[in-house]
Amino acid sequence: MASSRNPEIRKDRVLNRSVIFSPARARRPSDFKSKAPANPNPNNSSKECPFCIGHEHECAPEIFRLPKDTSDWKVRVIENLYPALKRDSKIIENEENPKNDSNGVVTGFGFHDVVIESPIHSIHLSDLSPSEIGDVLIAYKQRIQQLHLHPSIQYVQVFKNHGASAGASMSHSHSQIMGLPIVPPTVSSRTSSMKEYFHETGKCGLCQVRSQELLIDESTHFFSIVPFAASFAFEIWIVPRDHSLHFHELDNEKTVDLGRLLKLMLLKLSRQLNDPPFNFMIHTSPKDMEASQFPYMHWFLQIVPQLSGVGGFEIGTGCYINPVFPEDAASVLREVNVV
Amino acid sequence: MASSRNPEIRKDRVLNRSVIFSPARARRPSDFKSKAPANPNPNNSSKECPFCIGHEHECAPEIFRLPKDTSDWKVRVIENLYPALKRDSKIIENEENPKNDSNGVVTGFGFHDVVIESPIHSIHLSDLSPSEIGDVLIAYKQRIQQLHLHPSIQYVQVFKNHGASAGASMSHSHSQIMGLPIVPPTVSSRTSSMKEYFHETGKCGLCQVRSQELLIDESTHFFSIVPFAASFAFEIWIVPRDHSLHFHELDNEKTVDLGRLLKLMLLKLSRQLNDPPFNFMIHTSPKDMEASQFPYMHWFLQIVPQLSGVGGFEIGTGCYINPVFPEDAASVLREVNVV
Ligand SMILES: Nc1ncnc2c1ncn2[C@@H]1O[C@H](COP(=O)(O)OP(=O)(O)O[C@H]2O[C@H](CO)[C@@H](O)[C@H](O)[C@H]2O)[C@@H](O)[C@H]1O
Ligand SMILES: Nc1ncnc2c1ncn2[C@@H]1O[C@H](COP(=O)(O)OP(=O)(O)O[C@H]2O[C@H](CO)[C@@H](O)[C@H](O)[C@H]2O)[C@@H](O)[C@H]1O
Repeated sequence: MASSRNPEIRKDRVLNRSVIFSPARARRPSDFKSKAPANPNPNNSSKECPFCIGHEHECAPEIFRLPKDTSDWKVRVIENLYPALKRDSKIIENEENPKNDSNGVVTGFGFHDVVIESPIHSIHLSDLSPSEIGDVLIAYKQRIQQLHLHPSIQYVQVFKNHGASAGASMSHSHSQIMGLPIVPPTVSSRTSSMKEYFHETGKCGLCQVRSQELLIDESTHFFSIVPFAASFAFEIWIVPRDHSLHFHELDNEKTVDLGRLLKLMLLKLSRQLNDPPFNFMIHTSPKDMEASQFPYMHWFLQIVPQLSGVGGFEIGTGCYINPVFPEDAASVLREVNVV
Repeated sequence: MASSRNPEIRKDRVLNRSVIFSPARARRPSDFKSKAPANPNPNNSSKECPFCIGHEHECAPEIFRLPKDTSDWKVRVIENLYPALKRDSKIIENEENPKNDSNGVVTGFGFHDVVIESPIHSIHLSDLSPSEIGDVLIAYKQRIQQLHLHPSIQYVQVFKNHGASAGASMSHSHSQIMGLPIVPPTVSSRTSSMKEYFHETGKCGLCQVRSQELLIDESTHFFSIVPFAASFAFEIWIVPRDHSLHFHELDNEKTVDLGRLLKLMLLKLSRQLNDPPFNFMIHTSPKDMEASQFPYMHWFLQIVPQLSGVGGFEIGTGCYINPVFPEDAASVLREVNVV
């Protein structure tokens, strides 16, 4: 039985992280009450929600909508009203030493957008049809392409928070896109790790990551697995079958195919774990790449349910403790029937 | 005013992390209710608490107590009943390839202990006197020294979770100690970062970290600062004034001095932020060190209040967003009066 297995420390060759697998930890009692609310995304009144159709004037400016030029939109990409970075290029032009001073300070220039995934307050991403989810993915793609035109942008991070325990402050279904003036730490570390793997084996780590034991499902262009060294219980990766550098290389057919697999994975998590809070992140490649990196960089989408918080051990060591072995999580998720 | 300042991305030269400082983010509203309970460590009934005096038989086995051989103990170090790693050496002896197989799997051998900081349920660490906190620090030190005797242990992580949102599952004041068979990722990355800084400047990064702007307070042997690139709002570091590799080099006089400064910092955080959930972590050096590393490795204690959760951006990029500039946090914390 899995629960009597010995703990193991596994290293992920893609994200370069170490994870302790420890089934015994699942049995800890708690004298605090449950942290996640029963319904992580309560359908609070749409009257007060700026993301709802008809409330567009309460939002920060729109960047574009899909379909174009219609009041009956399906997806809107808007500026974030409380942006972490400033899109005003003046803040870099006006400084003597704009990019990087000797203290390691970079001016906080960048873009921070919100993608409203549906006009209706009570619709979650997984309620949409595969081609409607495909439209959300097309919005990501178009926005990434726009952001790449700016010379100071080096990396674009797309992510979604669902539920308060996953960090969401708004309950209306949405995701976020940030255009960054740096290549962030996880991306540098993933690049080195993938490079090292390539030099050792002559292969791309993501092309090799698929195994029968870890596989959950597959579609024409993608497969989904629980990664070998998942940091979070029931973490899922959706990976393009063909070696592909950047998320925004997706064509329209593939966005629908990915929409279908993403919907299926979200429904399986929701069914198995009772609509848990979750995050997803698109791990793509930096805007500027050297040809020598092409053979080993490969984008993927990571979904992490937030079932328990982290504590001082994870903050201190950077090493996560996961009570569920990936083979067991994959086997459970393969079986979940979502009709 | 701080809140009209432009955002900045700063890089920490010690922990090798990137942080976005963005005062605008502090103004975000939320349509979810507050995540942290009003009282993060409710004084639930001590009748049911295994960590209380008189309930020793409900705990996993004791390793030692202070003072020794008395039923009237002040601090107990016990085994964790749900350990993340197994202390049974048989799990490494019985395997053909115990340490590290080709997949990057390390056997989950190691130690996972709990330090009960007080016999009384309602006493928090910051309620203890400086010399009583010193006793807790002496317990850490003694246990680290014991764990270092085991040939497979490479690093010892000491950490504390206070409050449910900081990960605590038990409310009775306690901390944890894990003896690990690996050098964890943050420690390797800190080692490289400190080495790089040393090679650039000829100096130890921690010896250089003190600045008037960031200083909160100081004692005979320690100073406390808000680090230049704090990941968390109101994060605090307590750093030994003298260049010192390992936490367990502390002598008894220094433990009381550190106890006093730690108490003061915890009281300031509690006063300023209304008893927030928090973690602290001791960042020491690996057990085995080369002489060439002595000039740049320097231990410190990191305290992080948990005021807001993280979301997909932080998980995806490894880069945190902090709404409070460290200079501003230091200035606020300098002024907080705790008498
Ligand atoms: N009228 C309006 N027009 C336009 N935009 C509006 C708006 N009203 C609100 N917004 C923006 O909408 C966004 C909603 O985002 P989420 O709910 O996914 O999480 P948030 O970014 O608040 O923080 C979570 O995600 C971030 C990034 O991971 C973490 O730093 C943080 O701790 C976590 O809580 C917010 O960023 C907010 O600024
Ligand atoms: N009778 C008994 N005798 C001995 N030990 C007992 C016991 N009853 C309970 N324990 C142990 O006491 C410890 C209490 O620890 P904390 O409350 O600090 O957080 P916990 O380790 O549960 O998890 C938090 O910290 C870890 C590490 O950071 C994170 O992985 C996790 O997500 C977070 O919730 C637990 O580890 C538990 O196993």
